[in-house]
Amino acid sequence: MSKQVLPIVDAACCAPLACEPLSESDAAELAPLFKAIADPVRLRLLSLIACHEGGETCVCDLTTAFDLTPPTISHHLKVLKQAGLIDSERRGTWVYYWVEPAVLARMSALLGPAAPALAGTA
Amino acid sequence: MSKQVLPIVDAACCAPLACEPLSESDAAELAPLFKAIADPVRLRLLSLIACHEGGETCVCDLTTAFDLTPPTISHHLKVLKQAGLIDSERRGTWVYYWVEPAVLARMSALLGPAAPALAGTA
Repeated sequence: MSKQVLPIVDAACCAPLACEPLSESDAAELAPLFKAIADPVRLRLLSLIACHEGGETCVCDLTTAFDLTPPTISHHLKVLKQAGLIDSERRGTWVYYWVEPAVLARMSALLGPAAPALAGTA
Repeated sequence: MSKQVLPIVDAACCAPLACEPLSESDAAELAPLFKAIADPVRLRLLSLIACHEGGETCVCDLTTAFDLTPPTISHHLKVLKQAGLIDSERRGTWVYYWVEPAVLARMSALLGPAAPALAGTA
């Protein structure tokens, strides 16, 4: 992971749904993140990247995991990247992808129970 | 909350993304849940319902919280209900809504860190 994760996670943004009503601006900011993973292929891509040993995945390993063309995989990766859920870097022939854990944590915390322990993990 | 929450949460379905790659069938089942909340109004509706005192909310309180027509609010509530994120019951004049905590917990756990403590909350 060669890039710094932006400090987008703060107490206000990560209040679980059950803690306090979501503001209009937070909802507008969060909805596109959920839209990006509202697709089975993108959910699986995100999962493959997140659970890959070493924390990052070569695009060559992602294209072989699906019965889809490389351009289709690239399109889905682009959607995930534009939403800020993953980032990437080209090294030689291949592009490598990794997840942005702070963004996933923010989404998880929002949907999680309003328990102080869980909110504190974000 | 007059209805029983279905036992859809099990160890396999709730493995966080970072634990093991998501299966095709789990991804197909989960994507529509995220699609249902991939909209700012629906995210705010879900939040309002989740954090309402007593755990359920009269539709009369939801329609007044938005600068939208009642049919629009009803449409968004229907999408949330069809996805299984909320449930409702008519009592007299009004319909009352509540969230399905097990479904939210499943979504939260999927995006959460692969910590045993967090996985255990689902």
